[in-house]
Amino acid sequence: MLSIARDAQIVDISHSVRKFAIRDGAYLLWSAVPWLPVGVHVVVVDPGVGTDRLPIALRVARGDIFVGPDNGVLMPAAAALGGIVEARVLENRALMLPRTTATVHGRDVFAPIAGHLAKGRPFEEVGSLIAPGRLVGLEFPAPLAVDGGLETTVLFVDSFGNIRLFATPADLAAAAGPLQAGDPLVVEFPAQGERPAVRETVPWSRTFGDLPIGSPLLYLDSSGLLALAVNQGSAAGRMGIETGRRVRLHSGRP
Amino acid sequence: MLSIARDAQIVDISHSVRKFAIRDGAYLLWSAVPWLPVGVHVVVVDPGVGTDRLPIALRVARGDIFVGPDNGVLMPAAAALGGIVEARVLENRALMLPRTTATVHGRDVFAPIAGHLAKGRPFEEVGSLIAPGRLVGLEFPAPLAVDGGLETTVLFVDSFGNIRLFATPADLAAAAGPLQAGDPLVVEFPAQGERPAVRETVPWSRTFGDLPIGSPLLYLDSSGLLALAVNQGSAAGRMGIETGRRVRLHSGRP
Amino acid sequence: MLSIARDAQIVDISHSVRKFAIRDGAYLLWSAVPWLPVGVHVVVVDPGVGTDRLPIALRVARGDIFVGPDNGVLMPAAAALGGIVEARVLENRALMLPRTTATVHGRDVFAPIAGHLAKGRPFEEVGSLIAPGRLVGLEFPAPLAVDGGLETTVLFVDSFGNIRLFATPADLAAAAGPLQAGDPLVVEFPAQGERPAVRETVPWSRTFGDLPIGSPLLYLDSSGLLALAVNQGSAAGRMGIETGRRVRLHSGRP
Repeated sequence: MLSIARDAQIVDISHSVRKFAIRDGAYLLWSAVPWLPVGVHVVVVDPGVGTDRLPIALRVARGDIFVGPDNGVLMPAAAALGGIVEARVLENRALMLPRTTATVHGRDVFAPIAGHLAKGRPFEEVGSLIAPGRLVGLEFPAPLAVDGGLETTVLFVDSFGNIRLFATPADLAAAAGPLQAGDPLVVEFPAQGERPAVRETVPWSRTFGDLPIGSPLLYLDSSGLLALAVNQGSAAGRMGIETGRRVRLHSGRP
Repeated sequence: MLSIARDAQIVDISHSVRKFAIRDGAYLLWSAVPWLPVGVHVVVVDPGVGTDRLPIALRVARGDIFVGPDNGVLMPAAAALGGIVEARVLENRALMLPRTTATVHGRDVFAPIAGHLAKGRPFEEVGSLIAPGRLVGLEFPAPLAVDGGLETTVLFVDSFGNIRLFATPADLAAAAGPLQAGDPLVVEFPAQGERPAVRETVPWSRTFGDLPIGSPLLYLDSSGLLALAVNQGSAAGRMGIETGRRVRLHSGRP
Repeated sequence: MLSIARDAQIVDISHSVRKFAIRDGAYLLWSAVPWLPVGVHVVVVDPGVGTDRLPIALRVARGDIFVGPDNGVLMPAAAALGGIVEARVLENRALMLPRTTATVHGRDVFAPIAGHLAKGRPFEEVGSLIAPGRLVGLEFPAPLAVDGGLETTVLFVDSFGNIRLFATPADLAAAAGPLQAGDPLVVEFPAQGERPAVRETVPWSRTFGDLPIGSPLLYLDSSGLLALAVNQGSAAGRMGIETGRRVRLHSGRP
């Protein structure tokens, strides 16, 4: 990219996405882009590299451009920045490396095209239009109100072992009543495949430091979502929970 | 930070500090800042985020500014750059993100304030003065001359397993006599909690490569401190030693 | 480096080379430099730091300069950029940090000299000439045609567990006949030391995604070399293979 756009300022969001984990990549990108300056974002999480999945670029409402594979990894982030304004297939070989390989699109296709776009090349030069509705979708599963509680999904387990849920405090309050600091909440992970059911009662807590070391809690995470943590410990380790697990929350007040 | 100070040059010193390990963070910062250009340094190692500990900024004698939590992590580095000239509590919400969260001060408070300071905003605008003496202290324990030897503490175990001690060769020479290459030194870690005592005799050595692979040695590390290593191995692994362990050194000459 | 060359743009290729692994460092550097802009490259993989091995700088045909230890780590990359035009020993203390330590040449010698060179200091000022033929060599072992097949070496195992071989598809085709997608190839790792022999038949495949998850394959890697992989798995883990292992490939067609 620097060979093409010498003055580009490159920010490395993460090289630590679990290999082949498109949903983890989609989550990390979605959680990071609102805090980044408007720019050109290159993304590769790509178990299908070299297959028929298309290389694409998306222009979104905030003004950013995403460059990456059409496997869904870009979609939640594009939605978070106002939605797709224009989508194109990467076809212009003059903007790619002279010899592109079958397996390294990040280096041979995505990065050079991002460099040219960062340098001001018009978006329409990357290739022909594709209707956004024809792109591979990826949606985070919406939370559901059920039986006086809320059912949702584990979106991500971070490196602390905090369990990020796809639901906001407002979703939970709408389903289970208003939340006050210290309120007990029953968290249930139903049995799923070979994984046994897990049930724990935890307080709703504004911060970690209010609780003894080793205590579990439900808190508001950096993305505005509900998350389970253990103060200075790993909630995911303690509860044996992974991304994609279904979870139900309801009030633990008698 | 780049959204605020577009031309800032951001250097990532480390994202690998052990979680919740304030002393490790303080050590790494202290060991790095003398080699960095004068700048604004943002620091987060923060098990107490969201509790009552203050967000602060420190201006030091060399001209640098530190932005981070008042939990001691900034103090050794501030001392290494000539000491605190002025300390302020971060209060000016106009310099923070519009919606600050309880748990992500690094992103919502420290980083944007650092961006504004890097762009030239006067230091006094961040918030009101606090007396440096009221800040949470963190001192590395001083070495002591005892019985013809030196007693000190393990300051840090690096990723090679090298054991960094808080004492200089001058401290050791003052306590145990002058050092010459190859001189034998007896290193004793007294039993501590459930950890058994460890005792080993190692040569004082200018370099690693002088010794056979697998040999232990005492050497002068990159920060000017004494350190224990095993050539192409892990001294901490071999000896079972962690940060904070007390250690005694004395001459092994007959 | 930024203290000396304030406008330098620093690209971190890798800080994840296995400790003391000169060959791994040489491979990563060799595989990266063709894709980088012409620049000054600082390299440290250095189990012998502080011994008699020389600190050197190499000017190569493409116009780049390498700064690092004379232990062979720079040699394949220098060859890939057209070969050494001029080699010098780092002797000019005015271009180093005022107090250089015995064990931290990366910080005290290589980085400041690279900063001065990046800022435009003439190459001849770093120190006196040394004949390239007197430098420590490091060559990747050449592939050999044997008995209707090809014998070569494992050059590197990447973080996916892909096994990179030092041979191109052209080498294999010359030894074992032309390659077509799906052609079966017999891969044999003879017993070596305590490691048992391993033998597996894998297809030659243009991409990963063409095959079921868990299937092994031989493919063309990002450096133009043959590599063994398992689709969404670790070939090195499955086959128990490490860098340096000898390997034979021949056609599996009846």
